Amino acid sequence: MLFTPFKINSITLPNRLVVPAMVTRLSGEDGFVNDAIRERYRRFAKGGAGLIVIEAMAVHQAKSGPLLRLGDDQFIPGQRDLAKLMHDSGPGKVVPQIIHFLKIARSGWRQKVDDLSLDDIREIARAYAAAAARAIKCGYDGVELHMAHAYTLSSFLSRLNPRRDDYGGSLENRLRLPLEVVAAVRAEIGREFPLGVRFLGEECIKGGATVEDTRLIALALAKAGVDYLSVSAGGKFEDAVHRPGEPLYPYTGYSGDRCMPGASYPDGANLYMSTAIRACLREHGQQTPVVATGKINTPQMAEDILKRGDADLIGMARPLLADPDWPRKVQAGQFDKVIRCCYANVCKARDEHFQTVACFLWPKGASQAPESDDLQPPQWPASGDGLKIEHKNGRIYLRWNAASDNEGVYGYDVFRAEGAGEFMRLTAVPGGLTTFIDGGCAPGVGYRYQVKAYDFAGNRSAASQVVAAGTA
Amino acid sequence: MLFTPFKINSITLPNRLVVPAMVTRLSGEDGFVNDAIRERYRRFAKGGAGLIVIEAMAVHQAKSGPLLRLGDDQFIPGQRDLAKLMHDSGPGKVVPQIIHFLKIARSGWRQKVDDLSLDDIREIARAYAAAAARAIKCGYDGVELHMAHAYTLSSFLSRLNPRRDDYGGSLENRLRLPLEVVAAVRAEIGREFPLGVRFLGEECIKGGATVEDTRLIALALAKAGVDYLSVSAGGKFEDAVHRPGEPLYPYTGYSGDRCMPGASYPDGANLYMSTAIRACLREHGQQTPVVATGKINTPQMAEDILKRGDADLIGMARPLLADPDWPRKVQAGQFDKVIRCCYANVCKARDEHFQTVACFLWPKGASQAPESDDLQPPQWPASGDGLKIEHKNGRIYLRWNAASDNEGVYGYDVFRAEGAGEFMRLTAVPGGLTTFIDGGCAPGVGYRYQVKAYDFAGNRSAASQVVAAGTA
Repeated sequence: MLFTPFKINSITLPNRLVVPAMVTRLSGEDGFVNDAIRERYRRFAKGGAGLIVIEAMAVHQAKSGPLLRLGDDQFIPGQRDLAKLMHDSGPGKVVPQIIHFLKIARSGWRQKVDDLSLDDIREIARAYAAAAARAIKCGYDGVELHMAHAYTLSSFLSRLNPRRDDYGGSLENRLRLPLEVVAAVRAEIGREFPLGVRFLGEECIKGGATVEDTRLIALALAKAGVDYLSVSAGGKFEDAVHRPGEPLYPYTGYSGDRCMPGASYPDGANLYMSTAIRACLREHGQQTPVVATGKINTPQMAEDILKRGDADLIGMARPLLADPDWPRKVQAGQFDKVIRCCYANVCKARDEHFQTVACFLWPKGASQAPESDDLQPPQWPASGDGLKIEHKNGRIYLRWNAASDNEGVYGYDVFRAEGAGEFMRLTAVPGGLTTFIDGGCAPGVGYRYQVKAYDFAGNRSAASQVVAAGTA
Repeated sequence: MLFTPFKINSITLPNRLVVPAMVTRLSGEDGFVNDAIRERYRRFAKGGAGLIVIEAMAVHQAKSGPLLRLGDDQFIPGQRDLAKLMHDSGPGKVVPQIIHFLKIARSGWRQKVDDLSLDDIREIARAYAAAAARAIKCGYDGVELHMAHAYTLSSFLSRLNPRRDDYGGSLENRLRLPLEVVAAVRAEIGREFPLGVRFLGEECIKGGATVEDTRLIALALAKAGVDYLSVSAGGKFEDAVHRPGEPLYPYTGYSGDRCMPGASYPDGANLYMSTAIRACLREHGQQTPVVATGKINTPQMAEDILKRGDADLIGMARPLLADPDWPRKVQAGQFDKVIRCCYANVCKARDEHFQTVACFLWPKGASQAPESDDLQPPQWPASGDGLKIEHKNGRIYLRWNAASDNEGVYGYDVFRAEGAGEFMRLTAVPGGLTTFIDGGCAPGVGYRYQVKAYDFAGNRSAASQVVAAGTA
């Protein structure tokens, strides 16, 4: 099902794979599209995802760090070029995510929704509508409204929205501005232009909303004519860790962990949210498509989610950052050529430290994923893979011989089997390293390991020998 | 299945319902059993749950607030009386939960696991074993080791355990002391005396453990011969909110919300944890029973969990605090006589404020759940229920006429239907009130409401008329 077309309002996606909006920090503070941005999104387009959501761009002209902007007509030419480049580079549809955010200061101070006057609130809806109109002019296929994480519309939707007027204090009131924004945008763009919303399935903060609220938020948005609903989680200011001298960053607390679940989380950690939300929509007769995200990374997992009817579209952010060609390779039956995300969350850490977002697995210093059509896989040396295992100090230590490749060894996948279980891919190790320490083993369980080398095109070497440790 | 017997090691529970350990703050700081404790647990025993876990009692003699103790032989007579009282009062088996905790101060300071010497660590295992031996002498049916929340063994199991020696730094090392405690306790109590463990399915803190770790913790404990595994969540110091002048309390942050999920959480909010844990055990051939907890509250839900094989035993804390006779009533086919928890978490708030734990639904000032065998249900007045609805300010306001009863109206259940859906019980309102404000309604959804009065025995009045608001 993953590679079947899917209709959203007047457009048809070539497949069910979505690149959700991902911060890149590649733009300048001026907000214009630059070469690095163009290259990042050309790769996603070429990679073949059905829907590519371009990173959040501001609907207003508030000061911020590096951030794309759509709050003025001066941004249209650059964005129009980007839309054209992406359409020329691949089959996917392209929508920009548009965002309004409140002010934050290096002192840790932040503007809150109850600091806004009714005029300020009206201006937010107007700015969203104007930016959406610009998105049409740029040639985008639709627009996605950012109602997630720590930003303005999410803060209105929040259970912690402290307003005591018509814009807070009850779910209906918390929904008022987001629904006004949807109405204003729709009035501007017309009925057939796809309008999506990214919102939170769970706030993941003390006193925050869970699916008990968010399924009803989804229902209200669906009834208001939103064309798709993309479910995220967490990423809030309330539990953010303030670093002195830096503005508060909403992915530094537990809710940030839940927004981008790392290696310590199970696959599909947030799936229960989109499942509950979609079930609520369908129970109430709404057919609005739901995008599931959060550590979904294999074709099998994606297919299972679609087959179970837990979601209509599959969002993959970090896996497609690691390898933008994931869709193209998988459609060609070559999942074994995908460079696989290891959820080390170095991308997240770089973002937190205000660095341009890059993947830990990319070649050192690279600002984009490598491209290669090479077909020759890496080879183990004549002396063999030399995989050795040692169990000491409560950890399992692996080391192996370096493989070689005509273009260069890009990395190694480490596979592990628990007890009598099957081998599962555990993590990746960048090509410069030939060791791995496993600190996640329980006593009393036998473990087996195997390693494969891969090159820039994702060609895999023969599997290494199998080594074992622990008591079965 | 809920009311079928269940064997744990050498004992057989009369049914699958478990009262998990619940703090009461009813004991004195001396740690002896007193009348209030006896009455609290007599009610649970009489209520008919299959397994009653008595609140945590300290294995050591460290200073603390009101807390039962089993760290010295002087506590045996009182505990022996309590065990006998409970066995005499109902069919359930009874185990004490035994706990070791580290020091905390009103300044916010707390002792951490890396402050402990190897001698201190050895002493912890010894103290657990000695307390378990006392539990046998008291006539208890088994013993449960507290490895959850913010306490010593949980802090060793934590992904945030900072030790760099054999007791931290890897999953195997984090498990070392908990497994040493299990071995020491087992050596003391023998093979046939049931030994359970309460532990965390997820820490629910930044960087904390998820089921990726905890399923393996469960597996290691199962292989070490633990007789049942009871799954909780959160309740950690790391995200606790420090109130000046009070000791840090581990249920005051988000992880505290997740430990006792309140009204804003879906039913069975933590079920996915026990499901994943049990699946891992069974995949590895371990048949250790798993207790699921966390907002499980209806017989149907309990049956569904057991039928799906997601758990072997059903833990209910707050529902049985609200009505200790839940098991007896449900077994008699009278779920409609149960006083139902509304998850307002007043019990949790009282605990946080160092007050004795009571249920919000109990009569004002009561320190125990009321008992009544009355059969006469409350009546609406001759003028009718008078249920009125008003939709204003983004909220739905309900008010109704007071019902009357021969013994007194104890409260009202409020039922709500969303759209064309069925009536679901939404909440309870204590008997003195005849109003309810619903701030959780979404625009565009029609809502219908209905109210029933109940008395101390749980007899329900006729249902009120149905009133509706909102647009369908």
